[in-house]
Amino acid sequence: MSSFLRVVRIEEARAALEKRWRSRPRVVEVPLGEAAGRVLAEDVFSRIDVPPFDRAAFDGYAVRAADTFGAGEESPIELTRVGSVRAGEWPKFKISRGQCAEIDTGAPVPRGANAVVMLEYSMARAKVVRVFRAVAPGENIAERGSEVKRGTKVLKAGKMVTPQTLGTLAAIGRKHIKVYSPPKVAVVSSGIELVGAGSPLKRGKIYDVNGPAICRAVELCGGEASYLGIARDEPRSLAIILKRGLATCDVVVLSGGSSAGVGDVAPSVVDELGNPGVLVHGLALRPGKPTFVALVRDKPVFGLPGYPVSALMVFDQLVAPYLRHLSGLPPAERERVRARLASKILSARGRREFVPVKLVRRGREVHAEPLLKGSGAITALSLADGYVDVPLEREIVGEGEVVEVNLFGGVEVA
Amino acid sequence: MSSFLRVVRIEEARAALEKRWRSRPRVVEVPLGEAAGRVLAEDVFSRIDVPPFDRAAFDGYAVRAADTFGAGEESPIELTRVGSVRAGEWPKFKISRGQCAEIDTGAPVPRGANAVVMLEYSMARAKVVRVFRAVAPGENIAERGSEVKRGTKVLKAGKMVTPQTLGTLAAIGRKHIKVYSPPKVAVVSSGIELVGAGSPLKRGKIYDVNGPAICRAVELCGGEASYLGIARDEPRSLAIILKRGLATCDVVVLSGGSSAGVGDVAPSVVDELGNPGVLVHGLALRPGKPTFVALVRDKPVFGLPGYPVSALMVFDQLVAPYLRHLSGLPPAERERVRARLASKILSARGRREFVPVKLVRRGREVHAEPLLKGSGAITALSLADGYVDVPLEREIVGEGEVVEVNLFGGVEVA
Repeated sequence: MSSFLRVVRIEEARAALEKRWRSRPRVVEVPLGEAAGRVLAEDVFSRIDVPPFDRAAFDGYAVRAADTFGAGEESPIELTRVGSVRAGEWPKFKISRGQCAEIDTGAPVPRGANAVVMLEYSMARAKVVRVFRAVAPGENIAERGSEVKRGTKVLKAGKMVTPQTLGTLAAIGRKHIKVYSPPKVAVVSSGIELVGAGSPLKRGKIYDVNGPAICRAVELCGGEASYLGIARDEPRSLAIILKRGLATCDVVVLSGGSSAGVGDVAPSVVDELGNPGVLVHGLALRPGKPTFVALVRDKPVFGLPGYPVSALMVFDQLVAPYLRHLSGLPPAERERVRARLASKILSARGRREFVPVKLVRRGREVHAEPLLKGSGAITALSLADGYVDVPLEREIVGEGEVVEVNLFGGVEVA
Repeated sequence: MSSFLRVVRIEEARAALEKRWRSRPRVVEVPLGEAAGRVLAEDVFSRIDVPPFDRAAFDGYAVRAADTFGAGEESPIELTRVGSVRAGEWPKFKISRGQCAEIDTGAPVPRGANAVVMLEYSMARAKVVRVFRAVAPGENIAERGSEVKRGTKVLKAGKMVTPQTLGTLAAIGRKHIKVYSPPKVAVVSSGIELVGAGSPLKRGKIYDVNGPAICRAVELCGGEASYLGIARDEPRSLAIILKRGLATCDVVVLSGGSSAGVGDVAPSVVDELGNPGVLVHGLALRPGKPTFVALVRDKPVFGLPGYPVSALMVFDQLVAPYLRHLSGLPPAERERVRARLASKILSARGRREFVPVKLVRRGREVHAEPLLKGSGAITALSLADGYVDVPLEREIVGEGEVVEVNLFGGVEVA
C-alpha cells in the first residue's frame, strides 16, 4: 500500500501494475463452432492436401491429353467412353489409350487420365465421344495439393476467427482449434443504496447502472463477465464478494454507485485480502480521482469511479487494454475516429481530461459534440459515443478543431 | 420462373425480390442481459424520476439554506445535529430551523432541508455543528428528476444496445426491453462430394467450406444461423433439406461445393417447393453467374456460388443487406475502408467484377493487394480481408489508385 493516496498519471498506474503482474493470455482448444469471434492461438498447418485428389474443374470427359493432340472443330478425334465419375465417387477403372470417362465438376480424375475436355467441346453417341479441341496435360484439372500442400501453414496465430478463417479451417478438416480463452472478469457494484436492475425501487435506493454497463464493456473486449451483484459499501460485505471474485475470476472490476466511487472503504478492504494490495489510489486525470489499482496475489483488482460515463472512460483506458491482450485481440487501434469538434472544450491546465462526446454525421463529416458537465449522468451515458482525450498542457480545444475520438465499444458511427 | 436464365444486374435481382417480398424486422421482448449487441425496437421512456429523490451530491450536512446565510470562515454559524442519513436509508425525521443532519453522498435529503454543506466547510462537536460557508437553496443537491424526468424519452428505437444503453436502461429500472429479433437463417451446402468439418475424409470427398463460413457471416449480420448440413446434389435430397429450412427459418442460403455452385439442380427443385419460385438465375457479375434468388411463398432462398470467396462476396452484396435490415442494424456503412491498390486489376469491360484483396498496413497507409485468380480457393479465402468492386465500365484499375474496400465481417485492419 506504498503509493496510497499519491495521485499518479495513468501510464504510471499501468507501469506499477505491470511491474508485478504480466497479463498472460490462456490458450484453450475448442470445436470450430465455438471459435467464432475469438483469436487463433496457434499457427495452423494443413494435415491434408487440398484438394485431396486430382479433381475435374468442369463437367466433361477425363482423357489422356496425348490422345487429343490434333483435335479441332473440323477434325474431331473419337474416344471410347469406358465409365463415368460423379462428384463424391471414387473411380475404380483406369483410362487407357483411346479411352475416356464422363466426369463431373469436382469428381476425381481416374487413373490414366491427365486432362479434362469440357462438355461443350465434345459430342457423345452411345460409347463413342467426339472431341473437338485438344487439351494439354493438366488442363481443366485442379491437381491434388494445388490449393494447399500438406504441411503448409495456412493461418497465423493472432488472427481473428472470421467467416474466412472458419472456412479455411473447415477446408483442411480441422474439428478443433486453439484459441485464446476469454479472461473471466468479476464485476461488482458497491453501494448500500444500489438495487439491481428491474427490482422494486424502495425509498432512498437507486438502480445500479455500472454493473450491466461494465459487464457488456468487458464482453466487447473479449472477456467473460460475471456480475457478482451489489456489495454494501462496508468492509465485511465487500470482503465477502471480492473474495468470491478473486476465487472464480482472473480480474475483478469494482465500481461505486455514488459519484464518490469506491474510494472510501474498498481500498483498505482489498489491501487485507492479500499482497501486494493497493498499488495506486487516485489518477491525475479528470475523471479518475477515485480510481484504484490493486493486485491480490496474482489477480488485479480495479476500482472505478461511480459516475457511469467516468467509469466507462477509465475502464477503456485502464482495464480494456489488459482484457484485449488476455483475449488475444489486437490493441483497439480501429476504435478511433477523427471528428470535428462542434463546440469548444475548456479544460484545467495541468490536468489530463477525458471529455465524453456524442457523434453526429453532418453531410460527409462527423462532428463531436462535447457533453456538458451540467448534463446528468444518465443523459450523458445515453448520449455518449466516446470521448476526447485532452492532454494536460491544453486549456482550450477550439470549436471546429479536428480531434480524435476514442469510441466506446459497440458504437456504430451512423 | 419467368426470369429463368436471364442474367441480370445485382440491383435488378434485388428489385425482383423486393417487388414480391419486404423484409419485415420482428420485435421481441428480452431481459436486459440478452439485449447486448442487438438493436432497440422501441423508443424508451423513463417510468421513474432519476434520481428518484433529492440526493446529497457530497458528504456533509443537510441544512436549511436560509440558516447558513452570513456564515463565513471567520463567522461560522452553529446548527444542532438531529440525526444522520446514510446512502440507501430513508430519513424519518425533519429538519427545522437551526437544525441539520449528517448526510452521505447519495443519501436522500431529509424533509425541511434544501441544501448540503460539504464536510470540509464544517466542524462537529457532539450535537453542535459549525458551518463556515453559506449555501444557496439546492446547493450540493441532485434534485429528484434532475437527470431524467419521468415520462422523458431516454433512448431511441434503432440504437444498438451498447454498454451505455444497458447502463441507461438499468438506471431507469427496465428489466425487459424490446429489440429486433435475429432472423433465422438456414444454411445448406449442396454436393454429394462434401463431408462435414472434421469427419474422416473418404476417397473422392472434400470438406464443406461454405457451410461454416456462411454461418458465421450470417451471425455477423445479426442473424441466427442454423446449419442444416449437406444435401446430395440431387432433387430428392435437396427438396427434403430445403423444406426443412423453409419450415424452421426465415431465409434459406444454399451454396455448392464445386465451383459450378448450385446452378445445376437446385433452381428447379426450389421452383417446385412453392410459388413464385425462382425470380433470378445468374448475375451479370463476376463472380455471380451461378447465383439464384427465389421466393417460396414468403421466404427468400438464395443460391450462392461454390467457390468460397465468391460465395462470401455475393453473400455480402445480396444477402447481408436483408439480414442487417431484419436485425434492425444500420446499413454496413462503416465496413468500408479506403486503401491504396498494391498492384493493378485487369477486368473485363462490360462486366462488374468483385476482386478479393488482402489489406496490409504500410506505415500510415493501408494497401490492398488483389488476390490473383491463379491462387487457390482456400489460399484466397484465408487471405481475403474484403473485396474491391470494379464497375462495368472500368477495364483497368491502376496500381497506387485509392480504392474503396468492402470489408468482410469480423475483419480488423491490423
